[in-house]
Amino acid sequence: MIRVSVVGAKGRMGSHVVDAVNGAADTQLALALDAGDDLTRISPDNTDVVVEFTVPAVSLTNVLALVAQGVDVVVGTTGWTEEKLAKVREAIAAGPRPDTQKVFIAPNFAISAVLADHFSTQAAKYFESVEVIELHHPDKVDAPSGTAIHTAAGIAAARKAAGLGPVPDNTQTDGGSRGQVVDGVHVHAVRLRGLNAHEEVLFGNAGEQLVIRADSFDRGSFMPGVLLAVRKLAGDAPAGLTVGLDKFLDL
Amino acid sequence: MIRVSVVGAKGRMGSHVVDAVNGAADTQLALALDAGDDLTRISPDNTDVVVEFTVPAVSLTNVLALVAQGVDVVVGTTGWTEEKLAKVREAIAAGPRPDTQKVFIAPNFAISAVLADHFSTQAAKYFESVEVIELHHPDKVDAPSGTAIHTAAGIAAARKAAGLGPVPDNTQTDGGSRGQVVDGVHVHAVRLRGLNAHEEVLFGNAGEQLVIRADSFDRGSFMPGVLLAVRKLAGDAPAGLTVGLDKFLDL
Amino acid sequence: MIRVSVVGAKGRMGSHVVDAVNGAADTQLALALDAGDDLTRISPDNTDVVVEFTVPAVSLTNVLALVAQGVDVVVGTTGWTEEKLAKVREAIAAGPRPDTQKVFIAPNFAISAVLADHFSTQAAKYFESVEVIELHHPDKVDAPSGTAIHTAAGIAAARKAAGLGPVPDNTQTDGGSRGQVVDGVHVHAVRLRGLNAHEEVLFGNAGEQLVIRADSFDRGSFMPGVLLAVRKLAGDAPAGLTVGLDKFLDL
Amino acid sequence: MIRVSVVGAKGRMGSHVVDAVNGAADTQLALALDAGDDLTRISPDNTDVVVEFTVPAVSLTNVLALVAQGVDVVVGTTGWTEEKLAKVREAIAAGPRPDTQKVFIAPNFAISAVLADHFSTQAAKYFESVEVIELHHPDKVDAPSGTAIHTAAGIAAARKAAGLGPVPDNTQTDGGSRGQVVDGVHVHAVRLRGLNAHEEVLFGNAGEQLVIRADSFDRGSFMPGVLLAVRKLAGDAPAGLTVGLDKFLDL
Repeated sequence: MIRVSVVGAKGRMGSHVVDAVNGAADTQLALALDAGDDLTRISPDNTDVVVEFTVPAVSLTNVLALVAQGVDVVVGTTGWTEEKLAKVREAIAAGPRPDTQKVFIAPNFAISAVLADHFSTQAAKYFESVEVIELHHPDKVDAPSGTAIHTAAGIAAARKAAGLGPVPDNTQTDGGSRGQVVDGVHVHAVRLRGLNAHEEVLFGNAGEQLVIRADSFDRGSFMPGVLLAVRKLAGDAPAGLTVGLDKFLDL
Repeated sequence: MIRVSVVGAKGRMGSHVVDAVNGAADTQLALALDAGDDLTRISPDNTDVVVEFTVPAVSLTNVLALVAQGVDVVVGTTGWTEEKLAKVREAIAAGPRPDTQKVFIAPNFAISAVLADHFSTQAAKYFESVEVIELHHPDKVDAPSGTAIHTAAGIAAARKAAGLGPVPDNTQTDGGSRGQVVDGVHVHAVRLRGLNAHEEVLFGNAGEQLVIRADSFDRGSFMPGVLLAVRKLAGDAPAGLTVGLDKFLDL
Repeated sequence: MIRVSVVGAKGRMGSHVVDAVNGAADTQLALALDAGDDLTRISPDNTDVVVEFTVPAVSLTNVLALVAQGVDVVVGTTGWTEEKLAKVREAIAAGPRPDTQKVFIAPNFAISAVLADHFSTQAAKYFESVEVIELHHPDKVDAPSGTAIHTAAGIAAARKAAGLGPVPDNTQTDGGSRGQVVDGVHVHAVRLRGLNAHEEVLFGNAGEQLVIRADSFDRGSFMPGVLLAVRKLAGDAPAGLTVGLDKFLDL
Repeated sequence: MIRVSVVGAKGRMGSHVVDAVNGAADTQLALALDAGDDLTRISPDNTDVVVEFTVPAVSLTNVLALVAQGVDVVVGTTGWTEEKLAKVREAIAAGPRPDTQKVFIAPNFAISAVLADHFSTQAAKYFESVEVIELHHPDKVDAPSGTAIHTAAGIAAARKAAGLGPVPDNTQTDGGSRGQVVDGVHVHAVRLRGLNAHEEVLFGNAGEQLVIRADSFDRGSFMPGVLLAVRKLAGDAPAGLTVGLDKFLDL
């Protein structure tokens, strides 16, 4: 059994993590902490892996503290910059387990979204046309989603590396319907009550189409990815800082 | 058997009409004419219904001539204005069969597209959110399609008539991904090699979605609609000028 | 403000109804009762419409009691037979408001599902081919869903009424992949973790396809339909027993 | 310029190949032969790569002859068995270019279908649920398609290799709607006028879904794959017999 402590246990995501850890056959909940609780209670004596889902303002401090305490950490909080990541690497080097400490940070734990992104990059060079449609609930403040921009940029880079030219497009009049162009790839954002977070990538050649679609219906969609990361850290994940769930998928 | 003559029989659409008329059990080809052929050969003696698929520059002249010759006409050529339609009505009144002459003109003969448009208007008032996505081959010069604009406008009018307010949308930053706004309805246009003409309307409420999608894979998709119009003109269609295939669907 | 009492207020559906009633601008919660509570507390003095979401074993008794107390009722509980419906009609006739009493019972409150069913029946006669795919979570015990069978039967009846023959199908070898045949319409059932309740109807002619899809992502999807029924009963719904949400949609 | 000869040039597929070879910037048509023509006219003097699209009854004979003449061959004809493939390998060993001769045979040249199959196998181990839906025109005689069976078998093998158990399915009553079970994976076959050849693979976890869909709208969908194979044979493809387009995709 992998002993898992949760930091941010009462939050929107953290409470799902607690349920997932309790529900899986190979994990058990060690400590469930939230704002105001004493992080130093977490140690290698009671915890194999910590899952940290809090807010950007406190996540770096939490991670540095946990590294100093010698426990491995899966981080789901967003807002990581290169500068912050560098501090994590320094903390690992200066910590009690410089050669074995593991920290994993991912901007997206939905396996379907990570796979869709990866497959899209692989497929990119085989198609003349490609467009990205992302669909979210109407409360989302940014459009298009960061995930869609990332997918489009990856596709564009793969097309360029393969020597492909621009996508065919004979549009001569448009009032804005053709979407935002990210590195030459058109990206469309739909906002619809009832939806949560969805992305669809359409590839086209003469006579054929390939569609790759990822649907995240609710926050529970992140849990298989969180558990996968927990198992990798308790298992054969490499020491040091790893960023991105695709690193833990055998692709 | 309904005797059908085709005007524009060698054109892209007309040649499909010839095949469809030959293929159906209840229709037979009378005359197949094209540019340069003598239209006066078509008369009630040899033809029950004419199908006219030519180009906007000559279609009005053809229709006026055919009305003067006393034959009923199904017109698939595009480019009709109110002014042109008025001339057809005048021609019917001044022609040999003012009380029984039938002329039918439709901008779109794809039954799936016409139904999708109709159902979308019916569904509009029951949903908080709605967006339209149209997808076409990349050689199309206009975006979004006239069909998509028509669908969006119909939805907007139905929402307004039902007293619905604007669709929810908390987007605060956007680089153009949210599409063109037609009467308050967001419309997105995708251009992809391999596709022909497709439209998808997404409706959303809390926890639910309704999707209505019409796919026209090739020009053959117009033939069921053309045959339906031919049968209506040979059957119980009302006399006079009728515009729009939805008039011939029992909806 | 429409005063709404909820019977079964602590149940899976009832608790959503309480939230929906509290959340809507034109409704307010009167009484929230559950098993063991005294139904006679509900009267026209405190309640305009009752929403009853309990279990089949007690629903009839509840409805008969509420009718005797003179309040209008929206019933979401399933399991209604013709025999049970007859008893409701008798209770209305024998009750305190035989000419104005309203009772509404619906097997499905998801507006998207009801519209998809209705549109499918309307579209049926215009297409050579049609198949139904329903998709649900893997805990569902029956396949295909009652909704899918209802949709297929409605389509089959519409095809028959229009004189259409059997759908084209040249399949000569099959190991069971062609699905269950309901009145000549093939129905496929998919069971997938992550899904809730979804139905897709595919119509095809040469060169074209029409797809109508309803997605119910969670129980919240029933609430717009429940509120619509509450408003109709408080408004212009006809007196007597009404069955089916389609009766309250202007279609 | 790659000089391409086509065997079966007047056939349904061959005529498309002739057009594709004429249309591409880096290929030119050498000889276009059909039944009755003299195959010995094709030699390394006039041809870099032959594309053979005939019928199973004559394809092996053609390929053996072409190998004996020392030209590389892309074969699109179906019906290859292990026994036939062995004869090709023997012919290569006994031919004029045993160390450099290239022969490529593929059951499916649609890049989208080959990628969908490959990605599905890669994704298989990350999801609790999976089902396959294939959709074809109603004239198809076998159900489900060979491609769908291949995809399902590959998914099943990947699940088994990863130690996954059976997919969750609590169905207790079913009249045949749950489809054909291929190695534990449910496969559904839809037959619809207007469609050509389509496959959709649905993967599900709690709260998320991944959908991979390949659409082949017409025979033109095979041409990008044929040209890709031609370029590989004229380029860096390994000597000997290669089977399957996935071998030529960098995946």
